[in-house]
Amino acid sequence: MDLTKIKNPQFLKKMSIDELESLSEDIRRFLIEQLSTSGGHIGPNLGVVELTIALHKVFDSPKDKFLWDVGHQAYVHKILTGRACDFGTLRKYKGLCGFPKRNESEHDAWETGHSSTSLSGAMGMAAARDIMGTDEYVIPIIGDGALTGGMALEALNHIGHEKKDMIVILNDNEMSIAPNVGALHSALGRMRTAGKYNWVKDELEVLLKKIPAVGGKLASTAERIKDSLKYLVVSGMFFEELGFTYLGPIDGHNYNDLIENLKYAKKTEGPVLIHVVTKKGKGYEPAELDTIGTWHGTGPYKIETGDFLKPVGGPPAWSSVVSETVRRLAREDERIVALTPAMPVGSKLEGFAKEFPDRMFDVGIAEQHAVTMAAGLATQGMKPFLAIYSTFLQRGYDQVVHDVCRQNLNVFFGIDRSGLVGEDGETHQGVFDIAFLRHLPNMVLMMPKDENEGQHMVYTANKYDDGPIALRYPRGNGLGVKMDEELKEIPIGSWEVLKEGTDAVILTFGTTIGMALEAADYLKKENLSVKVVNARFIKPMDEALLHDLFKSGIPFVTIEEAVLQGGFGSAVVEFASDNGYTNRVVRMGIPDRFIEHGSVKELLQEIDLTKEKVVENVKLIAARRKQKRA
Amino acid sequence: MDLTKIKNPQFLKKMSIDELESLSEDIRRFLIEQLSTSGGHIGPNLGVVELTIALHKVFDSPKDKFLWDVGHQAYVHKILTGRACDFGTLRKYKGLCGFPKRNESEHDAWETGHSSTSLSGAMGMAAARDIMGTDEYVIPIIGDGALTGGMALEALNHIGHEKKDMIVILNDNEMSIAPNVGALHSALGRMRTAGKYNWVKDELEVLLKKIPAVGGKLASTAERIKDSLKYLVVSGMFFEELGFTYLGPIDGHNYNDLIENLKYAKKTEGPVLIHVVTKKGKGYEPAELDTIGTWHGTGPYKIETGDFLKPVGGPPAWSSVVSETVRRLAREDERIVALTPAMPVGSKLEGFAKEFPDRMFDVGIAEQHAVTMAAGLATQGMKPFLAIYSTFLQRGYDQVVHDVCRQNLNVFFGIDRSGLVGEDGETHQGVFDIAFLRHLPNMVLMMPKDENEGQHMVYTANKYDDGPIALRYPRGNGLGVKMDEELKEIPIGSWEVLKEGTDAVILTFGTTIGMALEAADYLKKENLSVKVVNARFIKPMDEALLHDLFKSGIPFVTIEEAVLQGGFGSAVVEFASDNGYTNRVVRMGIPDRFIEHGSVKELLQEIDLTKEKVVENVKLIAARRKQKRA
Repeated sequence: MDLTKIKNPQFLKKMSIDELESLSEDIRRFLIEQLSTSGGHIGPNLGVVELTIALHKVFDSPKDKFLWDVGHQAYVHKILTGRACDFGTLRKYKGLCGFPKRNESEHDAWETGHSSTSLSGAMGMAAARDIMGTDEYVIPIIGDGALTGGMALEALNHIGHEKKDMIVILNDNEMSIAPNVGALHSALGRMRTAGKYNWVKDELEVLLKKIPAVGGKLASTAERIKDSLKYLVVSGMFFEELGFTYLGPIDGHNYNDLIENLKYAKKTEGPVLIHVVTKKGKGYEPAELDTIGTWHGTGPYKIETGDFLKPVGGPPAWSSVVSETVRRLAREDERIVALTPAMPVGSKLEGFAKEFPDRMFDVGIAEQHAVTMAAGLATQGMKPFLAIYSTFLQRGYDQVVHDVCRQNLNVFFGIDRSGLVGEDGETHQGVFDIAFLRHLPNMVLMMPKDENEGQHMVYTANKYDDGPIALRYPRGNGLGVKMDEELKEIPIGSWEVLKEGTDAVILTFGTTIGMALEAADYLKKENLSVKVVNARFIKPMDEALLHDLFKSGIPFVTIEEAVLQGGFGSAVVEFASDNGYTNRVVRMGIPDRFIEHGSVKELLQEIDLTKEKVVENVKLIAARRKQKRA
Repeated sequence: MDLTKIKNPQFLKKMSIDELESLSEDIRRFLIEQLSTSGGHIGPNLGVVELTIALHKVFDSPKDKFLWDVGHQAYVHKILTGRACDFGTLRKYKGLCGFPKRNESEHDAWETGHSSTSLSGAMGMAAARDIMGTDEYVIPIIGDGALTGGMALEALNHIGHEKKDMIVILNDNEMSIAPNVGALHSALGRMRTAGKYNWVKDELEVLLKKIPAVGGKLASTAERIKDSLKYLVVSGMFFEELGFTYLGPIDGHNYNDLIENLKYAKKTEGPVLIHVVTKKGKGYEPAELDTIGTWHGTGPYKIETGDFLKPVGGPPAWSSVVSETVRRLAREDERIVALTPAMPVGSKLEGFAKEFPDRMFDVGIAEQHAVTMAAGLATQGMKPFLAIYSTFLQRGYDQVVHDVCRQNLNVFFGIDRSGLVGEDGETHQGVFDIAFLRHLPNMVLMMPKDENEGQHMVYTANKYDDGPIALRYPRGNGLGVKMDEELKEIPIGSWEVLKEGTDAVILTFGTTIGMALEAADYLKKENLSVKVVNARFIKPMDEALLHDLFKSGIPFVTIEEAVLQGGFGSAVVEFASDNGYTNRVVRMGIPDRFIEHGSVKELLQEIDLTKEKVVENVKLIAARRKQKRA
């Protein structure tokens, strides 16, 4: 069928299983084609085609509420709710968002991007329903990875305790357990939905009642199973004991199983968890064969071969420069340990993991634990390196405050994806970290002008022994500069004058240094001499240089790819105020609103963070200065 | 024995059980007497006397590492490690801290204050040990409440997965399950430690192997058990399946059981969890009889009667004013729902809970879930009120950003214990919230000058429909002002001139308004006319008033009981800079370091946040202004 003609999911109600199968094929073809040019989260979406269709067939959105955890698997949902026609704009500026958006459709009940929030959101919706006396279903859909996030576990515990009506879909796409266990469950699942459940249950209850008195260790079983939590998930016991009715595991690509179980869940009182087993990338061979996550989210690709179209070569990725330098240092310093909360590939830690398997910890989606575990390592004299995306470090804020900064421990934070990240949009922009770290005592925060300085900063962080130190670096690739062979220490708090000038000074760091230098070059032609400073330490600042600059009477422009409130420019005006300087300071950065998706270039344009605006601002303040002098 | 003569725990090694019993009595007497004058966490410490002594007898601190979760139960540990002589200074300025402190003793391996961090810290220490090849034991001691915190669950999952050697002590002091289950476990525990464990285990394993295939619901058992997680804890299954060897439950007041199990755990490979059942307040009748937490932490009391010595009457507590006003509004507005992360008593929500049991949610120690559940409620048109201590809101920072502010939902945050909290010290000071909330788009942040304005602000928050709104209020009691009968709305972003003046203006809010007014009165005598503004909205600020003030050329003093970096004063200098004003602004607030324990008055003195300093600052800037004018 022509998917772009779909207005809402009503048409599914009358469809036969055969018709649904045919629709699945159409949707898969559509996704594979569309994403081959736009890129996007292909693997997760191919995995939930049948699940999403079954959900929309059995439930009535928007009355019933779907909460897509993380949200990158909501493309099929978007197609079924009338947005196929917009897929040409997916993840593009002003186009369709890659995640659920409430202002995009009444069918998007809950916005996501970060992991593990859906159960708490669902608990709130279910509580609201019961207080207001309405009767909608609340259906969070959460992956097995997201379930290890602490807040999801907090919510599970609370939902089970409150016994709220809710249907949790556990989308398990990494199931690797012994087939017989799965088969047995499948059989039980069928019994349950066929009404034989109570009979089985009664018989088993006699057996089960003896269990709490035991607590023995299933050594032989445990050995077969790599992930301990996985075992609990599969046994269903974890959820049952928390107060949920557990259904499954069921085949997430089988309409009969899906629909039968969803209908059974509708009739069941209290919280239900349906354990659905799906295959990421289902129906597209290159994605199906993927074992390490290459097809989780991609750029454009060639459909026939599965080859990615992005140019090979070019400067190294920032993540790679940082993680590989850590690896290099780890060869000489056995105190170095690397940690990642479920992002070993994104943070380019595969090399480190291979060379130092005993000194590498992928803790799963567990940012809080990652930060505090790093603190624990540091108390014993280790030098932990925690690679973490800026936006995900938000989840470890209290741990940074309470465990790391307060104990003043030598934890090295590699804050990846700092600044605007582009296509992933507002949930992923790394723009708050300066504002939420700068006010923490003992924290050192730096950002390099290029990857060569980046590697020296990694070295500097390793040498630093006075507490926490954080290195911000952006998404994407370096500038392609020459890399020094020998690593060197950069004095903490030292800035670098990149260009001399007397009419104005630009203070900036990282990605925005380019536009500052370009603006200075441009202004030279207009006879304005602009100093450009690489303010590579955001905290502590180079106070000696600042005093010199302020005393000279020169006016300032500060530029940062981060929020203006409480940011770097704010630190500069605080300094001016505290020291009684009255030089003009114009702060450029991200205004007080969330920035949606688009290319970084488009977004910078939208918020006036451009060379042209720098030129304009410098002219303004330099002109005033000349007036004053005259 | 004379406890003040203890230098380190070595003396315990040779003590008989009888001698240990006698020591327990001495310690209980000491604690009851000492805390009757100083106040402190009496209940938790009386509960862990035997446990702490047994730990120090079996293990070798400081080589072996104890991590006291939350940390308020470490008094006995402090006594055994040579600090009894300092108990007269407990929780006093420059005195003994109420929590573990690394600079206080080499026996304090890990600092705490916030809950649920010990397992992650222990995982880091165990990882360090295994990399460096040392052989110390790592022993986190965590309560059953702290275990529901998401980060503790993240850590449990990771520790089990990594199979690190570690001995987790689960200090369960709320055990209320059927006695037979406990007894059976106790029997099993004895068998295990007596070497019969393997025999029992083998026999039971046959039975247990059938379980994963079942997943039936233990309806009859479940009914007996209030808290679903509790059941998992008691069954031991939860921990066993996560990869731990489970021992217990054992009587936490029985030395034989404790020592036998601790010794057995030492010999066991991989992570072990010992489930210890203790009684809070053990050995002091008023504390033993407490069921609602009155004796968790107290001020001074009369030993014979258990009567508290603090004055009755006086102005109402801030928490009470806010929560009772919410309750009053909830009578007319059924959209109002209250949430607390385990602090119903501290946040004075008992009245609300009694009147609206279906609209009150105590989610346990689960700040992340609390914030996002509030967001879920708000998506459905509800008006959730989340009462949360400033320092604990830190743990929900990402949820405030990603779920509440980004979706711009009507969540009302009651930020309790804002500003300096005094005796609980650096882990509990509520001094970061302005800096971590001010940079968030859509957030409204306010603080009242007195409890009457406080109740109007609660009303204002309820009327406000444009997104999140937060009300800061301090620990302790209001000022005793007259309360208006009728509640009224305060225009968002409006400030209030409390005193007119022309030589300088003081902008401040909340607790520091008093010192501003006093300073102004004092300065009047010296012929300086000082304007005082109640800057009750920290965000958005009263920009019209700010423009008027800046244009008048008047110099500013800003005062806040919060960190200076990125705080309110920073907002004022940002405003000045953005608008090209060059008036002098002197910012007063909390400097860039952690502030330890002491009375609030002493702490304010230490950081120069006093009337005298305000006077000094105003004189300075007013004199300069006069100079300029002259």
